[in-house]
Amino acid sequence: MTIEASRQERNAGRIRLGMVGGGQGAFIGAVHRIAARIDDQYELVAGALSSDPERAKASALELGITRSRAYGSFEEMAKAEAARPDGIEAVAIVTPNHMHAPAAKAFLDAGIHVICDKPLTLTVDEAKELVDLVDKTGKVFAVTHNYTGYPMIRQARAMVEKGELGEIRLVQAEYPQDWLTERAETTGSKQAEWRTDPKRSGAGGCIGDIGTHAYNLACFVSGLELDELLAQLTTFVEGRQLDDDVQILMRFKGGAKGMLWASQVAVGNENGLKLRIYGTKGGLEWTQADPNYLWFTRFGEPKQLLTRGGAGAWPEAARMTRVPAGHPEGYLEGFANIYAEAARAIIAARGGGKPDADILFPTVRDGLKGMQFIEAAVASSNAGNIWTKVG
Amino acid sequence: MTIEASRQERNAGRIRLGMVGGGQGAFIGAVHRIAARIDDQYELVAGALSSDPERAKASALELGITRSRAYGSFEEMAKAEAARPDGIEAVAIVTPNHMHAPAAKAFLDAGIHVICDKPLTLTVDEAKELVDLVDKTGKVFAVTHNYTGYPMIRQARAMVEKGELGEIRLVQAEYPQDWLTERAETTGSKQAEWRTDPKRSGAGGCIGDIGTHAYNLACFVSGLELDELLAQLTTFVEGRQLDDDVQILMRFKGGAKGMLWASQVAVGNENGLKLRIYGTKGGLEWTQADPNYLWFTRFGEPKQLLTRGGAGAWPEAARMTRVPAGHPEGYLEGFANIYAEAARAIIAARGGGKPDADILFPTVRDGLKGMQFIEAAVASSNAGNIWTKVG
Amino acid sequence: MTIEASRQERNAGRIRLGMVGGGQGAFIGAVHRIAARIDDQYELVAGALSSDPERAKASALELGITRSRAYGSFEEMAKAEAARPDGIEAVAIVTPNHMHAPAAKAFLDAGIHVICDKPLTLTVDEAKELVDLVDKTGKVFAVTHNYTGYPMIRQARAMVEKGELGEIRLVQAEYPQDWLTERAETTGSKQAEWRTDPKRSGAGGCIGDIGTHAYNLACFVSGLELDELLAQLTTFVEGRQLDDDVQILMRFKGGAKGMLWASQVAVGNENGLKLRIYGTKGGLEWTQADPNYLWFTRFGEPKQLLTRGGAGAWPEAARMTRVPAGHPEGYLEGFANIYAEAARAIIAARGGGKPDADILFPTVRDGLKGMQFIEAAVASSNAGNIWTKVG
Amino acid sequence: MTIEASRQERNAGRIRLGMVGGGQGAFIGAVHRIAARIDDQYELVAGALSSDPERAKASALELGITRSRAYGSFEEMAKAEAARPDGIEAVAIVTPNHMHAPAAKAFLDAGIHVICDKPLTLTVDEAKELVDLVDKTGKVFAVTHNYTGYPMIRQARAMVEKGELGEIRLVQAEYPQDWLTERAETTGSKQAEWRTDPKRSGAGGCIGDIGTHAYNLACFVSGLELDELLAQLTTFVEGRQLDDDVQILMRFKGGAKGMLWASQVAVGNENGLKLRIYGTKGGLEWTQADPNYLWFTRFGEPKQLLTRGGAGAWPEAARMTRVPAGHPEGYLEGFANIYAEAARAIIAARGGGKPDADILFPTVRDGLKGMQFIEAAVASSNAGNIWTKVG
Repeated sequence: MTIEASRQERNAGRIRLGMVGGGQGAFIGAVHRIAARIDDQYELVAGALSSDPERAKASALELGITRSRAYGSFEEMAKAEAARPDGIEAVAIVTPNHMHAPAAKAFLDAGIHVICDKPLTLTVDEAKELVDLVDKTGKVFAVTHNYTGYPMIRQARAMVEKGELGEIRLVQAEYPQDWLTERAETTGSKQAEWRTDPKRSGAGGCIGDIGTHAYNLACFVSGLELDELLAQLTTFVEGRQLDDDVQILMRFKGGAKGMLWASQVAVGNENGLKLRIYGTKGGLEWTQADPNYLWFTRFGEPKQLLTRGGAGAWPEAARMTRVPAGHPEGYLEGFANIYAEAARAIIAARGGGKPDADILFPTVRDGLKGMQFIEAAVASSNAGNIWTKVG
Repeated sequence: MTIEASRQERNAGRIRLGMVGGGQGAFIGAVHRIAARIDDQYELVAGALSSDPERAKASALELGITRSRAYGSFEEMAKAEAARPDGIEAVAIVTPNHMHAPAAKAFLDAGIHVICDKPLTLTVDEAKELVDLVDKTGKVFAVTHNYTGYPMIRQARAMVEKGELGEIRLVQAEYPQDWLTERAETTGSKQAEWRTDPKRSGAGGCIGDIGTHAYNLACFVSGLELDELLAQLTTFVEGRQLDDDVQILMRFKGGAKGMLWASQVAVGNENGLKLRIYGTKGGLEWTQADPNYLWFTRFGEPKQLLTRGGAGAWPEAARMTRVPAGHPEGYLEGFANIYAEAARAIIAARGGGKPDADILFPTVRDGLKGMQFIEAAVASSNAGNIWTKVG
Repeated sequence: MTIEASRQERNAGRIRLGMVGGGQGAFIGAVHRIAARIDDQYELVAGALSSDPERAKASALELGITRSRAYGSFEEMAKAEAARPDGIEAVAIVTPNHMHAPAAKAFLDAGIHVICDKPLTLTVDEAKELVDLVDKTGKVFAVTHNYTGYPMIRQARAMVEKGELGEIRLVQAEYPQDWLTERAETTGSKQAEWRTDPKRSGAGGCIGDIGTHAYNLACFVSGLELDELLAQLTTFVEGRQLDDDVQILMRFKGGAKGMLWASQVAVGNENGLKLRIYGTKGGLEWTQADPNYLWFTRFGEPKQLLTRGGAGAWPEAARMTRVPAGHPEGYLEGFANIYAEAARAIIAARGGGKPDADILFPTVRDGLKGMQFIEAAVASSNAGNIWTKVG
Repeated sequence: MTIEASRQERNAGRIRLGMVGGGQGAFIGAVHRIAARIDDQYELVAGALSSDPERAKASALELGITRSRAYGSFEEMAKAEAARPDGIEAVAIVTPNHMHAPAAKAFLDAGIHVICDKPLTLTVDEAKELVDLVDKTGKVFAVTHNYTGYPMIRQARAMVEKGELGEIRLVQAEYPQDWLTERAETTGSKQAEWRTDPKRSGAGGCIGDIGTHAYNLACFVSGLELDELLAQLTTFVEGRQLDDDVQILMRFKGGAKGMLWASQVAVGNENGLKLRIYGTKGGLEWTQADPNYLWFTRFGEPKQLLTRGGAGAWPEAARMTRVPAGHPEGYLEGFANIYAEAARAIIAARGGGKPDADILFPTVRDGLKGMQFIEAAVASSNAGNIWTKVG
């Protein structure tokens, strides 16, 4: 439990966090809030959760933010929070892309740290302005290229850095999806609408949404700098305004080469992010669908399966790990589901009401059944392996 | 984000939670705390975190529990909390097995809901007492057979229930591990010590630790009741006091049969929990190492890969799901790691101190790099796919 | 190409082979014939291919056996072939089980080597008689427990023998299928008919058909002798005369334990033969569906993927290998399909006839296309990576 | 056993086959010979097996070719065989690339069908000449793009053709290997020598050896014609004369796009040929390492695993299939290994000699053990599942 351990500075007090965007119905806002809660180091205390002031406030109340800190706009929030003695220390910006830059500037100017979704801005110029502002203010600024948070990605990066692969020759990255195979932006998908709208997403569709993820990951692990690229962006779905498929050849500084493919129309792919890196001495392969595994081959030796928390894990991976080897990280969510179902029962009990019929979690009777199973198994075995009634 | 949605009753106020066991160095206590935080429905406010009173208190302070509610024993805690107007509503019991029953009784008697680790107790008699007490008090009592919380396990259960497999014939369950291949209990592993000690674990070693998990899961999904079993428990490691391998034949009520294998000495297995169920019309296969997948075959048709959140997911699975299809559930932990690293930087900034050198998260510069990549890709593509400098 | 090399004694002359059983419509006879041809060491020259004399002769002619050596019964064949100066040296017996013993005896008595399908006989007594007869006659007698022929199974056996796993503790074998999920024996499947008929299959159904395969493989690789077993044989399909599911606990001499599961009603399993062996120092896993791979873990080290012909392959595996690493063994069949399609065209050309419309193989035009592709690729690359027309 | 069935025209007489190249130590020649034998439709009767006349003759004798048809050159062979009444009907050309064109021309001119390895020739002009000559002579000419022979590739092609994928948008092909990661051509690998020598391989290294395979397969399955390409060929290993890595963007006629990656320096890849095709309605994925499987997704439905011979197999695949579903095609080779080991014993018995100590195949004693296992299992089960001694 390395991460929990490293969190014990927490009693210095949770970080007071605000959020811009992420109101009702937004997917990524909820993900940010869960992520902030997992290690108990943040407390969400303020929000401007929607560009629609009414909705912003309603969303805030639902999330337990007090009325006075449920803001109608990020400008208002930046100003008010900066003025409070107990104002937020950090803000999470989880709006569509076009709002990232103005919001980030407002909070940096107000002396507040920023955690911002990707891609950073609509244009390179805006991004450069932000870099300058961060340099000037000295504030912390994190971009949630979340795939860099996976333990085995940390391991991969460390292995490349320590020379386990020799000199890098090839970087192959891909991120196929299929959710935009048909024209979802005209049939009610809010995500699809703004992701394919150049006003809110910028000049890149697929390239901005997931191509950047693959690129960021390729650089993060390989430690290489891209020198030049040659791209073929395609819009396969008629009427769509932005690219839905990206094919890129890459030349890195130092001579490595690579290919990057990202697609939103590759039927049968959910989130097929995959990274393969090959050097003069070894090769690495990682896929997001099996994030606990890293395949490593030294040239001329059998392939090894390195696992999060397993025998071949390095400290760089271990530091990012909450559960032991062999428990996929969904383990925590499975546990959380038991807690959540129990919470529904407990809340129902508060009011003396009847719990909902679909609540489902293992009860004391299941516990008893388990004990009866153990008892019968021990008895059967002790009696020379004979059939034994259970319960 | 079904789960987040269903949590919106939360502003009724978080459930005040206490914890027994789970102090410094304990693995499962930290897991319970994270699970309780993920959906923001519990607040940990009291604890008797160790059987050693000094350590209990130190652990509580580290976790942000106020001094007055950091108890030296669970008896003291049950009594004191029951007397407070803002006392805990629920307690999580995460001690070694022998403490489950006395602690659970104390809190049920005090009118407090219980969430208890498995196996429920040391003996069947203790378990029956708890069942009676729960019936009498009407309190909520959850046992953390956590594998029942996985979305695709919910799906599997629902599919069996709705008859998709026809009449069940075979239930094959297995849970191989290898962590006790050598005599770890004499070389300093605290886990190994109490897991192999009959005084603290009861009559079953492997059968009580992981055999019960496999059994619970088999019953949960199949909906079957075990009628009788025939067991061969073995202790392979010399000097060990409890079984480290379990082989069981099972006969279920209604005629289905099954096998259960659990082992702590099967070299190369981390947590190889696997469940396979076959009926007259179809078959299901699930493995914990790939929890987002459920394999389903209708007799005479091609095998289907059902994914959490994917095209074939049923409402019973969707209800337990926080992230969309294709993001393995480790996605949230990856995100949380970015937040955790940023928190380290923010906390360092609080004191004006220098952040640690090993802090690693994507910064505004990485964001800029992403924008430069998009810009170059769009430019290259628009210019007829030519090589284009990046940055 | 180790095997080809070792075959170079072949010009000593191919072994003259006869066959009993395996006429029109029989699956396993054709498999034996292909197996005998692959290394060009046998020539099929005589046959008693069916218990129906007419059909036996027709089948023989179809296979290119001359009329005078197309026999109506195995008795006749044994006698006649023994009398010929160019009589068969070996016979392959591929009948239903009940014919194995009488046929084998007839040929051994006639001084002819025997290759016999499994299970060996209907009863243990018959099997013992055969053992004695083999000892007396000194003839070669091979039983086609074909899974022992896989290169990675040879490797596994060698690794166990050399102590790579330490002392063996656990042997887990399974062989699930689903082809008898419904009552196929009454709906025209010839295979299903005799496999479920005690007169032709003996006392075991699933246990005799595939349980023996799993058992043979477990012993072959582990080198262990089974001491005692405890079995639960079940007939799930109503009206069926023999078992269709087998669950067995095993105790080996020396203290190892194991489980064996074989089933013909496990929906979704085609031929799920799998063997896992665990010792004090390491573990091995192999599945027939991926026969080119062997998973090996030394306790406390990362799992290794050993591949047929790959970096970690031992001589015992290499000796059984025809194609290099990374070509699954279906590679040869893929090649053979090209040859077979070309043969259809060549045979059609013989008679000046028109080849069938469905013949499909790469032609000289496909070869040209390949050259144009290479040419364009080289040209594009040499010109600085520009778009280049193909063809 | 569809293929065996379709071979029953064989008794029209085997096709008399000659071979050019493929002498001692050559890998691909042996593969061609096995492929030709599997279905028993060819008989190898003549050969010019090496460019070194002595070696050519020695190799031929080893393969059982009579002395008079063991030729020192292909020119001599073409002339002599054309003159014989029982001359070869077809020739297999398995030399390095530069010999393909002259040899093919000689045999076509002599009225002999040709089966030729890929790539077809050294240059496009040579390839065009061959096309013209085939048109003029009307002879059969097969190029062994062997991957087109896999049953599931036939299935994939048929599915695309029948519109199961809708209109094709994307064709992603890759073929990574690692055998040329270091400079093997200077350390004694014959393969590596000629593969990296422009005189014998032509202008393409990796592109000619495996890039063409990936390209051929992409066209075969998709049914598309390539319009233009943009290539980046790289030589990573210093001193090497030809490319060892290939990255290509592709534009097909009709608007589909694609990427092709082939590499001989991607450490950890043996023969990673993979094809993915996506259309408006569905997607397909196939990898050569698991050739019996084809993944198919209809947009909006769960992914299906189609297996060779399984429930979802089409006639186009079934026609190319020799063994039932679930037996990987290595099944035949496994069987052949048993036959080969038995042959060693039989040949040793011929001379009354002692068989080699390393001969290993299941004997009559293993057959007896199998019977004892069945007997014990039936007895244990019949006696109410009790422990029963074996043997």
